[in-house]
Amino acid sequence: MARRVGGHTIALDSRPTVLSWAAVGGKLEGEGPLGSRFDEIEEDSYYGQQTWEQAESAMQKQALALALEKGSLATQDLGVIFAGDLLNQSISATFAHRASGVPFVGLYGACSTMSESLALAALFVEAGFTQKAAAVTSSHFCTAERQFRFPLVYGGQRTPTAQWTATASGAAVVGSGTGPRVEAVTLGTIVDLGITDANNMGAAMAPAAADTLKKFLKDTGTTPKDYDQIVTGDLGAIGSTLLAELMDKEGIVLEGRHRDCGLLLYDREAQNQVEAGGSGCGCAASVLCGALLPDLDQGLVKSILFMATGALMSTTSSQQGESIPGICHLVHLTSRR
Amino acid sequence: MARRVGGHTIALDSRPTVLSWAAVGGKLEGEGPLGSRFDEIEEDSYYGQQTWEQAESAMQKQALALALEKGSLATQDLGVIFAGDLLNQSISATFAHRASGVPFVGLYGACSTMSESLALAALFVEAGFTQKAAAVTSSHFCTAERQFRFPLVYGGQRTPTAQWTATASGAAVVGSGTGPRVEAVTLGTIVDLGITDANNMGAAMAPAAADTLKKFLKDTGTTPKDYDQIVTGDLGAIGSTLLAELMDKEGIVLEGRHRDCGLLLYDREAQNQVEAGGSGCGCAASVLCGALLPDLDQGLVKSILFMATGALMSTTSSQQGESIPGICHLVHLTSRR
Repeated sequence: MARRVGGHTIALDSRPTVLSWAAVGGKLEGEGPLGSRFDEIEEDSYYGQQTWEQAESAMQKQALALALEKGSLATQDLGVIFAGDLLNQSISATFAHRASGVPFVGLYGACSTMSESLALAALFVEAGFTQKAAAVTSSHFCTAERQFRFPLVYGGQRTPTAQWTATASGAAVVGSGTGPRVEAVTLGTIVDLGITDANNMGAAMAPAAADTLKKFLKDTGTTPKDYDQIVTGDLGAIGSTLLAELMDKEGIVLEGRHRDCGLLLYDREAQNQVEAGGSGCGCAASVLCGALLPDLDQGLVKSILFMATGALMSTTSSQQGESIPGICHLVHLTSRR
Repeated sequence: MARRVGGHTIALDSRPTVLSWAAVGGKLEGEGPLGSRFDEIEEDSYYGQQTWEQAESAMQKQALALALEKGSLATQDLGVIFAGDLLNQSISATFAHRASGVPFVGLYGACSTMSESLALAALFVEAGFTQKAAAVTSSHFCTAERQFRFPLVYGGQRTPTAQWTATASGAAVVGSGTGPRVEAVTLGTIVDLGITDANNMGAAMAPAAADTLKKFLKDTGTTPKDYDQIVTGDLGAIGSTLLAELMDKEGIVLEGRHRDCGLLLYDREAQNQVEAGGSGCGCAASVLCGALLPDLDQGLVKSILFMATGALMSTTSSQQGESIPGICHLVHLTSRR
């Protein structure tokens, strides 16, 4: 049974397994360094739908369908779906799963949603609340731009600190069996150091990543050397530098273990429109399901701390002058059989 | 330990307890039938803040603070806060709890958030993932109107089927000890029968309530007579009638057990601006924390099925012609010691 380790970390002693997973991406994601690792690349930004919002929903639905198919599972094998996305009232997730017939727990964790949903899915399996649970999320460049920033046709200039919302989705099914193990979970605390620039979200999220990582390492009595990779969600270039600085101040050296989904997903030289790197719920989700889980499954990597990070502001809160609260949930994954 | 009962219901055999709770409301809620049962009524719609969004956040923060105070608990006693609200990117919840230092799991279940959060809090305590977990949500008439409908100064005419978003918040702390017991949980499935009228959300949510109730009764082999009250979230007058009809079709008679938070919160004669009744996350939350939990605690009522219902659309999905998916999560509460 699960044990509370230290103050913030839950060790999953029955070690739930990620049974299957899938990643779906758009054209730009297909052209990036991880392009060949997606299960499906769709070049049409409308994904055969009438609107971008419907496209994002279809993408999320397809990611889960592919994950189930790859695991020879049916939708009705799922006891619960944990899902969310960036859109107002999480409509991508709702409409993606409305016909599933599966109990649905809607989440909002902004870009941290993949680790939030994966953590809850693993905890539900650990506790025996369900046999199999899905964790799913998505983002879409076009839906996010028009909701959070400017209409695309406006052709606004992007700042060098800006990140590019990934058009992507990832889905993972947790149960008991063969596959990467979920060893532990640290649910994050909201951290807000007063960053107000909505074009520099990596900087807003880095303190939350530092806080969660510090708590996990303290709770488990481990150091970064004990893990092959420490993979943050989407801090991008600026947030990644800041994370290293914040950890240094705590006397914790990342030892070359740190990677960031926002930097893994795109080639910032060849794809320079992404500026400081990728972001969006689908960024961490697709890197997890396209690269990290397969690498663990094949034993190429033995131990990963997956730490998706979220910036919990809205256009309204920013317009009202509020700073940007960040959050980061951590899931420890291993290739242990 | 928890048992899966039938297909959709989880019985909580260690029976987590609702240790403390509090309800905060606005002026109209204070003038309603439950006015005297709120822990705090604030007549200023700004709650001493600069904006209504900040007011809603402050209200949610205050509800949790009062719940903790009434239970002689401190914020740091909480292992996790489950919270959400109706606003884009759930900013009421985020900003309410950003300084708490407590692990935060953001939810989006629209007006079903109180039963979603209470269910997860109880499940976390049941599994031993934490000693104490909080479930919190809120809504505010002014933030909801301007986000979902029209600017208030526009003075738009409301339809007779429209419901009134409650300015209210409720918070409950779950742990082990004295208080109403959480006996079982049924996480709901999204149900969408094609209602597209965003001014008739009770009708959109009633099929979800019927679906969840039917599953719970089947899983547990019980009938409505086995419960003192079956309390839906905020179906209002039209949705409540529809629920009875839908249950009738299934051969299940509600036997006078049905109540609806949207009808309990206001006096539709004296407060006729509420039209078909109350709604909003804060409606079910404040009725639960202001009336249902105290009634259970005092033994006035022995057994309640608390079923908050949510309409999972956004203005974007409605503008794009989508129908309104509904969801309903059920929590079975008793006064058993």
